[in-house]
Amino acid sequence: MTPSNPADAIKLLAFDVFGTVVDWHGSIVREIESRFPGVDADAFALAWRAGYQPAMQRVRAGELGWTLIDDLHRMILDELLPRFGLAHLDEASRRELNRVWHRLDPWPDAVAGLTRLKARYTICTLSNGNLGLLADMAKRAALPWDCILSAEVFRAYKPDAATYLGAARVFDLAPHEAMLVAAHQDDLAAARACGLHTAYIERATEFGTARPKDVSPDPRNTFHARDIGHLADLLNC
Amino acid sequence: MTPSNPADAIKLLAFDVFGTVVDWHGSIVREIESRFPGVDADAFALAWRAGYQPAMQRVRAGELGWTLIDDLHRMILDELLPRFGLAHLDEASRRELNRVWHRLDPWPDAVAGLTRLKARYTICTLSNGNLGLLADMAKRAALPWDCILSAEVFRAYKPDAATYLGAARVFDLAPHEAMLVAAHQDDLAAARACGLHTAYIERATEFGTARPKDVSPDPRNTFHARDIGHLADLLNC
Repeated sequence: MTPSNPADAIKLLAFDVFGTVVDWHGSIVREIESRFPGVDADAFALAWRAGYQPAMQRVRAGELGWTLIDDLHRMILDELLPRFGLAHLDEASRRELNRVWHRLDPWPDAVAGLTRLKARYTICTLSNGNLGLLADMAKRAALPWDCILSAEVFRAYKPDAATYLGAARVFDLAPHEAMLVAAHQDDLAAARACGLHTAYIERATEFGTARPKDVSPDPRNTFHARDIGHLADLLNC
Repeated sequence: MTPSNPADAIKLLAFDVFGTVVDWHGSIVREIESRFPGVDADAFALAWRAGYQPAMQRVRAGELGWTLIDDLHRMILDELLPRFGLAHLDEASRRELNRVWHRLDPWPDAVAGLTRLKARYTICTLSNGNLGLLADMAKRAALPWDCILSAEVFRAYKPDAATYLGAARVFDLAPHEAMLVAAHQDDLAAARACGLHTAYIERATEFGTARPKDVSPDPRNTFHARDIGHLADLLNC
């Protein structure tokens, strides 16, 4: 008897974006190096990203009202600039720099892998990034999403269950008919707790080549893939 | 002195979908004729669509809580079936038939016209249809949206100002940097009252070839186009 393939039940692939589909660290390092030679671009990128979870936590805790990630990125940026000798940047420059998150480059396998998966599945984002950010990013990088879903639609950030269940509900699916694809085990664990399938993507250099990340498999995930192309292989796309 | 071209300020084209991009009447007629020979498919399509505004009005008036268009379509369908001798349809058949709204065919000019416009503008939907409906439709018909926006995102139906202003705000734009494209003057008038530019698309056969619609120009619209390809011409795309 052939064991049933979980891939047969899955209709929707919902992708985490920052780190999973796009290389935020490398993209920000390249932009900081080109705009501000002499600034420690690696430290700048890491500090900007490190401010992200505490900023979302302020919203979750009710200390801040519902806030788009663009605005959280800007709050973190404003705190960061003096530490990197950039306190002199004017409003227009800060605004433009903050939009680097709309200009992140995809990992080299992302566009081709997504295009293969799209032929069989509905593929969408499920990101804490706001809709405008995700749409600008997709347009620039030619990411072929069928639909852009965001924390903004559900007014809740991942790992709130409302986001994972909300993505399935948008497509009138049961949780087990959807799969979250992400490079972060905590995101996947939260999706799994909601009944979604999960696929882990290795992104060992998410925090830069100098700081390799543990990408060990967790057997609780439905799939474990080296990259999005490999996931397409595993799903016979 | 050359008068400034409004097209130069516009960055976002937000499209009404039912009737403007897709031919709901023709698509539903074709499906009813093929499933239920003998049923008056033209009358069926018109009655289903005619139930739509009153159903949304029940939500606007607070008589119904927030309801997705899929569910409104289904409520209308259930009322309609006995009138057309189809009261015997079971749950699975009703569910499947209701999804005809996810399978509407685009007008012949839509995909090519949108593709031209996408090269210069961000193009999104701004429809009362729910996200899953719009995404299924786009995937099937290869509509090349940069982003799918819906009443569902704003929890308000057009012509509520929250929808038009919300679409501009998603992209961090002022209202005059966005343009609504629609085949319905009332939708356009509401967008114009919010400060958006407006483009009218002639769809004389929206209600069927037997029932041509008045497609006279309204000089208050920024553009008046025969179809989406013609709009691309007018915008030099």
